[in-house]
Amino acid sequence: MQTVFHVSTPEDVRVVVAKVRNLLADESVEMESVAAVFDRGEAIASLHADSDLAGDLRDLLGEGAGLKVCRNAARHPAVSETDLLEGVEVVSSGVGELTRLQDEGYAYVRL
Amino acid sequence: MQTVFHVSTPEDVRVVVAKVRNLLADESVEMESVAAVFDRGEAIASLHADSDLAGDLRDLLGEGAGLKVCRNAARHPAVSETDLLEGVEVVSSGVGELTRLQDEGYAYVRL
Amino acid sequence: MQTVFHVSTPEDVRVVVAKVRNLLADESVEMESVAAVFDRGEAIASLHADSDLAGDLRDLLGEGAGLKVCRNAARHPAVSETDLLEGVEVVSSGVGELTRLQDEGYAYVRL
Repeated sequence: MQTVFHVSTPEDVRVVVAKVRNLLADESVEMESVAAVFDRGEAIASLHADSDLAGDLRDLLGEGAGLKVCRNAARHPAVSETDLLEGVEVVSSGVGELTRLQDEGYAYVRL
Repeated sequence: MQTVFHVSTPEDVRVVVAKVRNLLADESVEMESVAAVFDRGEAIASLHADSDLAGDLRDLLGEGAGLKVCRNAARHPAVSETDLLEGVEVVSSGVGELTRLQDEGYAYVRL
Repeated sequence: MQTVFHVSTPEDVRVVVAKVRNLLADESVEMESVAAVFDRGEAIASLHADSDLAGDLRDLLGEGAGLKVCRNAARHPAVSETDLLEGVEVVSSGVGELTRLQDEGYAYVRL
């Protein structure tokens, strides 16, 4: 199965780290793919290499979760694409990506 | 592709105006249909012809987005169906409409 | 049709009681199944047999709605599985259940 999480706030980021771990640890569902779409600058700031959550988010990337950033939101002054963790993908729009993934059969979970 | 936005607060209304524009401007997804379901009186008030956001919401209607109002929520004292922008549709329930549209293949995005 | 509600806060619990009723009363959609997944301790506390909302939630169970509790969240100190209303199901993870149900064709509604 496939799941995409929709993440907007710094609190959402903390929760999504736990949710992805719960999902990957849940032996009753066989996951092929897990992704998270970050659509606001305040959440995207946590994807900077020097953020407090960088270690946890690197772990998620290492476990195969896809972390995707909305290009529109990445224009936020506090965010610079070049500072993002290696492996984070910038997408043309968060809502476009959420639409495309659900169209491919992903379940959607809003934090 | 098709997407329905779920809108409950006045802040959600401001965000959905931007999200629908981002989605329609995203050339990586080909959109057949975009809708927004308003399920609380405080959000529905923005669909009055004299609201601050009436101009933006008229633009969305003009671009083909469907704006749908939950009849249960439209009973809110601040809302009168006759004051709604032309083109807004009243549906028998917001959750019923969200169910029906997802059943038809719409992706769902919660503001 | 089938719908799953995602419930996290005490306020969400109050709203979901009304939403499930609206959905079951909406003659324009024929519902085969309605479920609600509770994924935080503060919402799960409302599923205790002595909570303020116990009567409403018992009514929903009586109308056939499935109420499901995330085992991870049920470890919250204020929650004890043995105190839950009869008929509430404990699932191995809330996100796993939300994924499985959407994979089976349920529409998803985030409170």
